[in-house]
Amino acid sequence: MRVGRPIGIFDSGVGGLTVFRAVRRAMPGEDLLYFGDTAHVPYGARSPEVILDLARAHFRFLGARGVKCIVVACNTASAVALPRLIGGMRFPMLGVIGPGVSEAVARTRNGRVGVLGTSATVASGAYQQGLLRARKGLKVFSRACPLFVPLIEEGWTGHEVARKVAAEYLKPLVRARVDTVILGCTHYPLLKAVIGRILGPKVALVDSAEAVASRLSALLRSRGLARQGRALGRETFFLTDTGGTFRRVAERFLGRAPRRMVRVSVRLASVDGKG
Amino acid sequence: MRVGRPIGIFDSGVGGLTVFRAVRRAMPGEDLLYFGDTAHVPYGARSPEVILDLARAHFRFLGARGVKCIVVACNTASAVALPRLIGGMRFPMLGVIGPGVSEAVARTRNGRVGVLGTSATVASGAYQQGLLRARKGLKVFSRACPLFVPLIEEGWTGHEVARKVAAEYLKPLVRARVDTVILGCTHYPLLKAVIGRILGPKVALVDSAEAVASRLSALLRSRGLARQGRALGRETFFLTDTGGTFRRVAERFLGRAPRRMVRVSVRLASVDGKG
Repeated sequence: MRVGRPIGIFDSGVGGLTVFRAVRRAMPGEDLLYFGDTAHVPYGARSPEVILDLARAHFRFLGARGVKCIVVACNTASAVALPRLIGGMRFPMLGVIGPGVSEAVARTRNGRVGVLGTSATVASGAYQQGLLRARKGLKVFSRACPLFVPLIEEGWTGHEVARKVAAEYLKPLVRARVDTVILGCTHYPLLKAVIGRILGPKVALVDSAEAVASRLSALLRSRGLARQGRALGRETFFLTDTGGTFRRVAERFLGRAPRRMVRVSVRLASVDGKG
Repeated sequence: MRVGRPIGIFDSGVGGLTVFRAVRRAMPGEDLLYFGDTAHVPYGARSPEVILDLARAHFRFLGARGVKCIVVACNTASAVALPRLIGGMRFPMLGVIGPGVSEAVARTRNGRVGVLGTSATVASGAYQQGLLRARKGLKVFSRACPLFVPLIEEGWTGHEVARKVAAEYLKPLVRARVDTVILGCTHYPLLKAVIGRILGPKVALVDSAEAVASRLSALLRSRGLARQGRALGRETFFLTDTGGTFRRVAERFLGRAPRRMVRVSVRLASVDGKG
């Protein structure tokens, strides 16, 4: 029965746990397979070619584990890899760009929307294009924030340094008088308080984790794939590097320790130069 | 003739270019093969197992390209992988830990030495052990500085944020009254001015790039492997990701654009869970 199969949640590392948490809350009975590519994190500064190679291999891995769908929690992979890989998969796939775009369009009043993300996400133009497709005439202001992820993983979200870095990155958005800002990286909700204080209470912050979870729930129900009536689904965390800081950082994201962690070995079968 | 073969310089990314530059200056006639693992950078937060897997594959790649020796410019790989791999290679290998240790021991007057490095380098204890082997009774104070690399790659070395981050990381070293500090990551010399201002002019900063280059030069001469009498050696930059920010950041490290860049494809032959 496909309905009993697990949901795959893919991320470049630990950030996708914000999506994991939202999915767990929305669908307590589902089995969840989380894949964190902790041997290659962060994706944000890598080229589209490398991100595509990694995502393809990892989606196949989750496919072989019998998932009924994959949620791509990583904004960079959603922006760069998903559009090019979604056609080849035999199960539904859902990224975070679409739900984030929909929510931003629903919330903006003045039509001026900010996007914060990694260098690769901003360079892809995925949010920009999505927003303009959803509503012509929107003004979009994007800003890459490469220091946010390391700051969050260092646990410095309450540190003066986080405020100064955020103030620097947000300058052009403040100047542009945006009324809605997409937090276009799964880590960024952990800086929501800092970002909110700089932008002020009138600017809406869009965190796509909740939006993705509710869209996923609707998708599974519409296809008859939603599992119901079970107390609590199982959870497995597949990681390409289990030895790093995942456990410690995961506790900050999840509010509890991840239960079952499994190392996935990424074999370097051949390394050879072209050119 | 082995003497005509190139020198391999291995790094996790772009930081090893400080070593590359020092080697080029010391040995202008040598051909240099630089390997930057830009698809997996940074190594600093990864586990020893993953670092070992990557280093093993990449050393083999350089070996197959006929290098006469390998300099491991990356502190994390020098600390974690080199001790376990050096035995299996058919050519001499040189890391940055030893030369850094020797210089620190030569410079300290009060026997109190600080070590700055990535999380993996500090966790390995390689500098600590090397220093105590070189001189018993030294007091060693180590500090992991995970935000330094992203700050440098963002180009914020002159920004107020860099000063605040450095002040925070250096607090315990100032308190410990060290008179010598090892910059135990190839990136850190780019923050030398900031670090120097906090520690004061009486604290010696050890940058191992120069020390490694002069030790390499001596090693090649002693083994009859030094190439002489040629105007300028060739240079190739092998990178596992050529599309990212390498070129831009390399200009900051090298003072000029890298000439010949070659993408090395790292194949993900099989991805499978154990457990």
